[in-house]
Amino acid sequence: MKKEYLYTPGPVTVPPEVLLKLAEPMYHHRTPRFKKMFGEVNTKLKTVFRTENDIITFTSSGTGAMEASVVNFLSPGDKVVTINGGKFGERWTLLAKAYGIDYNEMMIEWGCAPDPAELEKILAADPSIKAVYTELTETSTGSVFDIEAIGNVVAKTDAILVVDAVSGIGADDIHVDAWKVDVCVAGSQKAFMIPPGLGFMSVSEKAWKLADESKLPKFYFDAKKARKSIAENNTPYTPAHTLLEALNVSLSMIVEEGIDNVIARHTRLANAVREGVKALGLKLYSKSPANALTAIEFDSIDAEELRKYLKAEGIFVAGGQNDAKGKIIRVAMMGYATESDVMNALSVLERSLLKVGMNIEPGKSLAAAQKVLIG
Amino acid sequence: MKKEYLYTPGPVTVPPEVLLKLAEPMYHHRTPRFKKMFGEVNTKLKTVFRTENDIITFTSSGTGAMEASVVNFLSPGDKVVTINGGKFGERWTLLAKAYGIDYNEMMIEWGCAPDPAELEKILAADPSIKAVYTELTETSTGSVFDIEAIGNVVAKTDAILVVDAVSGIGADDIHVDAWKVDVCVAGSQKAFMIPPGLGFMSVSEKAWKLADESKLPKFYFDAKKARKSIAENNTPYTPAHTLLEALNVSLSMIVEEGIDNVIARHTRLANAVREGVKALGLKLYSKSPANALTAIEFDSIDAEELRKYLKAEGIFVAGGQNDAKGKIIRVAMMGYATESDVMNALSVLERSLLKVGMNIEPGKSLAAAQKVLIG
Repeated sequence: MKKEYLYTPGPVTVPPEVLLKLAEPMYHHRTPRFKKMFGEVNTKLKTVFRTENDIITFTSSGTGAMEASVVNFLSPGDKVVTINGGKFGERWTLLAKAYGIDYNEMMIEWGCAPDPAELEKILAADPSIKAVYTELTETSTGSVFDIEAIGNVVAKTDAILVVDAVSGIGADDIHVDAWKVDVCVAGSQKAFMIPPGLGFMSVSEKAWKLADESKLPKFYFDAKKARKSIAENNTPYTPAHTLLEALNVSLSMIVEEGIDNVIARHTRLANAVREGVKALGLKLYSKSPANALTAIEFDSIDAEELRKYLKAEGIFVAGGQNDAKGKIIRVAMMGYATESDVMNALSVLERSLLKVGMNIEPGKSLAAAQKVLIG
Repeated sequence: MKKEYLYTPGPVTVPPEVLLKLAEPMYHHRTPRFKKMFGEVNTKLKTVFRTENDIITFTSSGTGAMEASVVNFLSPGDKVVTINGGKFGERWTLLAKAYGIDYNEMMIEWGCAPDPAELEKILAADPSIKAVYTELTETSTGSVFDIEAIGNVVAKTDAILVVDAVSGIGADDIHVDAWKVDVCVAGSQKAFMIPPGLGFMSVSEKAWKLADESKLPKFYFDAKKARKSIAENNTPYTPAHTLLEALNVSLSMIVEEGIDNVIARHTRLANAVREGVKALGLKLYSKSPANALTAIEFDSIDAEELRKYLKAEGIFVAGGQNDAKGKIIRVAMMGYATESDVMNALSVLERSLLKVGMNIEPGKSLAAAQKVLIG
């Protein structure tokens, strides 16, 4: 017998009550029943985003919503800043390139966070910059960026701030309205605790004004068209409405726990993982570690071999990407995760480290994590 | 107690064994387990499409796959023919407009099918036309188009033939290779018998050549990038893999029945509905009626009121769109539909017609349908 635990930074474990919702009989999406459910989803999404702005739902992965945040607000040749501190920041640059946008790429060392003062200088030097594209949580490095500080910098300019919060929202805090985030992008398979297939995008009034001028071509990801439909709790094209039904259940779990409590839980669990890891003498890969996932760095062992031992005991974590492959593992306590999951992950991590020949003292990470959890 | 039956032209009833698959625990999509499953899906999809061409799967609704069939093969200013015989044919024109394509719109009266000879003249008059966009089944009118004849016309030119088979494939026959269809678009919530959320697009070598020259911007729907991933049974971005798992189950049901038998079943059921309806003195809306759905026309009663009576007995059918609203109902026997569903739908239709005050002889449609089913 083997029990499996999904501690990857998306997809994450889907709660059984949400899974059962997915097994309910099909119904038609152009009905009052759909509108009622979608209305509830739209209200609850605003609680998680901490916004009064419209939130558009696309049937797509998070990348589709990222594309929507480019094509709806820009015109060919527009100038933007893309903040690239990992695989997902790089995606902003690739998107800008694909759409003929004039991008200024702010390169950040992997595992680091951008310096808002540097961004301020870039924006001051060129008032024609239309938008700044950044991450909340850079999943490839386990880093969280200071969106509040970045928001204050961008809000003073004519540019809009676009944040990829796909992996972060619901685990790493983001206050879309208070932090002046104009466009916030999210995905369903992370802290929202449902399967992949839905992308979200909140849009501020400042961003809607840019949408009115935007000349990039769009159709499926047309936000203005979607906004009209959403006013009637509808969608322009057939939505993945069974995923929306599942989302309505998982959002209720989040709202019932309270978004502040949800963020506090993720903070507590991430702290416990970090303290546990450090107690074993291991290093965190990120200098600005996120709640959503913890990247652990190894010098002396092959991280991919370690993952095999973790997997053999039913623990699924992510490895490193690009140059970080073989050097890090990424452990996510995201969404449907509790204290039990932290202790479980650390316990198997200790046994696996011994198996790859590392000299650690068993129980040390558990004691350190326990200390954090007791508080 | 009320039992509900979904006879709308998508979404359709999802078989219980497929629903249960959706309730299985989440797993990660960058794993051998995913690749094995996706490989099986890709092989079985080819059986349904009757093609050896690559089939790209997008996490999107059918409209997303339609957009993919525009942005991947064209450049700004390219000339195309769009065949518009209803709401979905019109979508081709709207897509062409959104992407700055020079379109020649072939308008077809609602309920009619295009004349291949007329298309031949248009293509002969302008050899620079790059593509012809048409429907297999026009869902708004319940019409099926003669793709084999259209394929023969287009194959003689340099243009590619793009067919929206979203509502048709698996119910109305299409032989992608034999009928020279270069790009065939489909969606998951129709005869594939799973929830909405996946779009499919098959691509011929003739179309891949056009893809090499295409200058329209694209990222999420980039077919060339997806083709590289699919060669390794992978996807460029996070797929809705739990829907793919469900699809693998429903495709197995189709392959086990045999695609020829599946089409024969849909033909038999549609014939039974048509004969039943005609026996009541009712008219078919389409002059070229499809298998996927039957549009029934009413002169003397309000079709929307009729739908209310059908719904009161648990039968969900679609109404008319645009000018056809209130004039037609659209009854789909698609996917998980059998003889029992035909008899059930006709039986409730008879009772509902009496309730709206139509003078029909009860049992007549049932006897006529029964005759077809007995064969």
